Amino acid sequence: MNHHDIQLDKYGRLKHFLTIDGLDRSLLLDILNHAESFAGVGERAVKKVPLLRGKTIANLFFEPSTRTRTTFELAAKRLSADIINLNIASSATRKGESLLDTLRTLEAMHCDMFVVRHANSGAAHFIASQVAPHVSVINAGDGSHSHPTQAMLDMFTIRMHKKDFSSLRVAIVGDILHSRVARSEIHALSTLGVSEVRVIGPRTLIPKDIHTLGVHVFYDLIAGLEDVDVIVTLRLQRERMRSALLPSEQEYFNLYGLTETKLAAAKPDVIVMHPGPINRGVEIDSHVADGKRSVILQQVSHGIAVRMAIMAMTLGNLAESKPKESDAHSN
Amino acid sequence: MNHHDIQLDKYGRLKHFLTIDGLDRSLLLDILNHAESFAGVGERAVKKVPLLRGKTIANLFFEPSTRTRTTFELAAKRLSADIINLNIASSATRKGESLLDTLRTLEAMHCDMFVVRHANSGAAHFIASQVAPHVSVINAGDGSHSHPTQAMLDMFTIRMHKKDFSSLRVAIVGDILHSRVARSEIHALSTLGVSEVRVIGPRTLIPKDIHTLGVHVFYDLIAGLEDVDVIVTLRLQRERMRSALLPSEQEYFNLYGLTETKLAAAKPDVIVMHPGPINRGVEIDSHVADGKRSVILQQVSHGIAVRMAIMAMTLGNLAESKPKESDAHSN
Amino acid sequence: MNHHDIQLDKYGRLKHFLTIDGLDRSLLLDILNHAESFAGVGERAVKKVPLLRGKTIANLFFEPSTRTRTTFELAAKRLSADIINLNIASSATRKGESLLDTLRTLEAMHCDMFVVRHANSGAAHFIASQVAPHVSVINAGDGSHSHPTQAMLDMFTIRMHKKDFSSLRVAIVGDILHSRVARSEIHALSTLGVSEVRVIGPRTLIPKDIHTLGVHVFYDLIAGLEDVDVIVTLRLQRERMRSALLPSEQEYFNLYGLTETKLAAAKPDVIVMHPGPINRGVEIDSHVADGKRSVILQQVSHGIAVRMAIMAMTLGNLAESKPKESDAHSN
Repeated sequence: MNHHDIQLDKYGRLKHFLTIDGLDRSLLLDILNHAESFAGVGERAVKKVPLLRGKTIANLFFEPSTRTRTTFELAAKRLSADIINLNIASSATRKGESLLDTLRTLEAMHCDMFVVRHANSGAAHFIASQVAPHVSVINAGDGSHSHPTQAMLDMFTIRMHKKDFSSLRVAIVGDILHSRVARSEIHALSTLGVSEVRVIGPRTLIPKDIHTLGVHVFYDLIAGLEDVDVIVTLRLQRERMRSALLPSEQEYFNLYGLTETKLAAAKPDVIVMHPGPINRGVEIDSHVADGKRSVILQQVSHGIAVRMAIMAMTLGNLAESKPKESDAHSN
Repeated sequence: MNHHDIQLDKYGRLKHFLTIDGLDRSLLLDILNHAESFAGVGERAVKKVPLLRGKTIANLFFEPSTRTRTTFELAAKRLSADIINLNIASSATRKGESLLDTLRTLEAMHCDMFVVRHANSGAAHFIASQVAPHVSVINAGDGSHSHPTQAMLDMFTIRMHKKDFSSLRVAIVGDILHSRVARSEIHALSTLGVSEVRVIGPRTLIPKDIHTLGVHVFYDLIAGLEDVDVIVTLRLQRERMRSALLPSEQEYFNLYGLTETKLAAAKPDVIVMHPGPINRGVEIDSHVADGKRSVILQQVSHGIAVRMAIMAMTLGNLAESKPKESDAHSN
Repeated sequence: MNHHDIQLDKYGRLKHFLTIDGLDRSLLLDILNHAESFAGVGERAVKKVPLLRGKTIANLFFEPSTRTRTTFELAAKRLSADIINLNIASSATRKGESLLDTLRTLEAMHCDMFVVRHANSGAAHFIASQVAPHVSVINAGDGSHSHPTQAMLDMFTIRMHKKDFSSLRVAIVGDILHSRVARSEIHALSTLGVSEVRVIGPRTLIPKDIHTLGVHVFYDLIAGLEDVDVIVTLRLQRERMRSALLPSEQEYFNLYGLTETKLAAAKPDVIVMHPGPINRGVEIDSHVADGKRSVILQQVSHGIAVRMAIMAMTLGNLAESKPKESDAHSN
């Protein structure tokens, strides 16, 4: 577990945010509680707090993602930070500068935070292991490894609808094998103590050793959805279609696409989540995506609040909260 | 007319700004009056007012236009809003996300305004018809349909030079058929009650039914310019050259290019306008573009003030003005 | 020298910053002194001063450079200015708009400053000669001519380590022929009165008439490094390799690459500088680049402070300083 400790400073406070794996329950609750206080900011006439005024945040996107970049950019701006967008693929590396030299250069410019998106698993960890002491690193998705801010916004969304994690049964549906979201989600749900986590998908898209994470595996969608409180539908990467891993989109939808009919297997008050962008008619039917059980757009809103909380916490600009107490009342 | 009502809220205030067509005279004057109060901001040492502080504006450009994007970006920044630039063609849609899902996502991020540029006529209307109640939409140019902020900055420029709209004779010269500027301009001039609007251009570039808008058609430039107070020269899209619609650039210039000689047909105090960027030696001679009758650069300055006014009005951040009174004294 | 006067207003104050050539010693010291007061800003919790609040700065990059653009963007943001990034190659010029029309348009939008990067020598001068009186132009690198902010941040870095310019021996190593950095550096060092400037490189990469600038030429690296206080290593443009001007990278490194062994020829307290990004193993060995004589990352930090100083000075937002006095105590 040693490689996770890098996320915490010597007082156990969040310094980087790279993966859910290794973080304890009180810290996750701390993030959720702080996010709750930021959730109101988005509703105000003046969506702005001065918490990170004069801080410099760099969006280091080695892999393009307008959607994720935008959420971090908005979170930074609403915290009054200065943010610069760097599309690394198209800049320094073209001139043959090494990654480490790019990091050193940005540190020397007194950047306080790197938000890192990279196609390679472990990239954010590597960067966090190399940066100067004054810099915080946030993982905005690395390969098929981890997407921890997505997991936390999902936890936030679940907590809004289901008061008690410990009684929940959660199903994650789709391409578990390649999903950084699934991995982060399973860690977060386990740490928050849900009753049961299920993964559902075709054999080719579920890792053989997934049971070691304490989840139950289902290859049949309806069986897996039975009595669940929360469904997390994963985005199907269409690129996979071209490989031998998957049947046609239509066949996938027939077997694993979430429809109103299949939803009936779950609890009546089930909530349906999706990290977006959704493929309508592939992993989810439009009636479900736009239906009354869907909380997909709430996830987007919460994404800003959760990222504001994590940015402010890692930069040490939030007063110490009391996770034990909030823990007691909120769960 | 029903599809225009979408621009106004139930109290008749501007909610979206999509087209001039359907807006009444007092509202157009209201915009001009507000713009007048913002025109001074650009001249100050500190070009900034706190009116939209904490608002989030998204530039949704489905069609690239650095120039127009920049004017909206500057207008937003001078109003102290947070602005994010989204080049939609290259982002979400590449991942197959639908337009509506992109809108819903940005709404969920608590964006307050979408500034929309799109190659398809009607795109901004469609988006305005779909957005959440808290979002305002501004049309920054849709296909060959409308470019209403351009029309309003032109009206502002005319009013700076000619005190009374009702006595004016205005000529619009060039490719009327494909011009979103021309269409918006004609509506604005009619609504503001100018004495006569003329369109001048080759037969192939003037719509057959244009007279239904109450304009007079001229195929001869000198005849059309006789005694006019204002000339609006349109940009010639060079792409049209390759089609059968147009002769060579040189021949076009000979027939419809604005020169000092041809300008003599107009009133001595005529003003010459152009939405930019200009094709020197195609639709306008450099002597005219840079000459003393040209107000082309003033149009650019006014563009920021007019956009500030429209942004602040649609977001409801301006005190109710009294259009009837300002109407009385300003026209 | 007449074409340099354009940099100064009629009171001798900095209006544009285009080249070091023609600026006097007291003005260079003035820049360094102001930069010193800004250097602290980067170390603060709130890295922001309100000096240029409400000013509009446009990054006009006709040649892409994420690194340089980022330093100007950060400098502007820390001065509280509004900054817009314009990649000109891909925008207006594509629509056939002339450079002058682009400038006029940005002026009309009330931009206060253009930061210009261009592949052609003299581009920034040309632009400065054409802009409206209220606009300042900063040269962020033009062809092989000049890169004056880089030279000033190098002077700042030297002064941090070496108290007295007049006793210094400085060596510039590499492709002198194509380097805008070298040219600016030589002018700055001469003006600040260093004892000796040497240029070191292969015959093909040293201009025949370079001695007219008062420098000593060495074709042998070790001979040239003897007893120097400061080494400026230039970036080798790999494109040159393909021409006949240069041997292989390996051969270049053998002859002119800076290694610990070769460094021994210089003074024990020599400092090693490089404008970045560095080509490790080509012009400099990693042991030297990361070693205790290297001040390469300090240069990056100083780059922000120096650019803040120059931006604030050219926009006239700094109280008149007293260069003679600071001159006396600091040199």
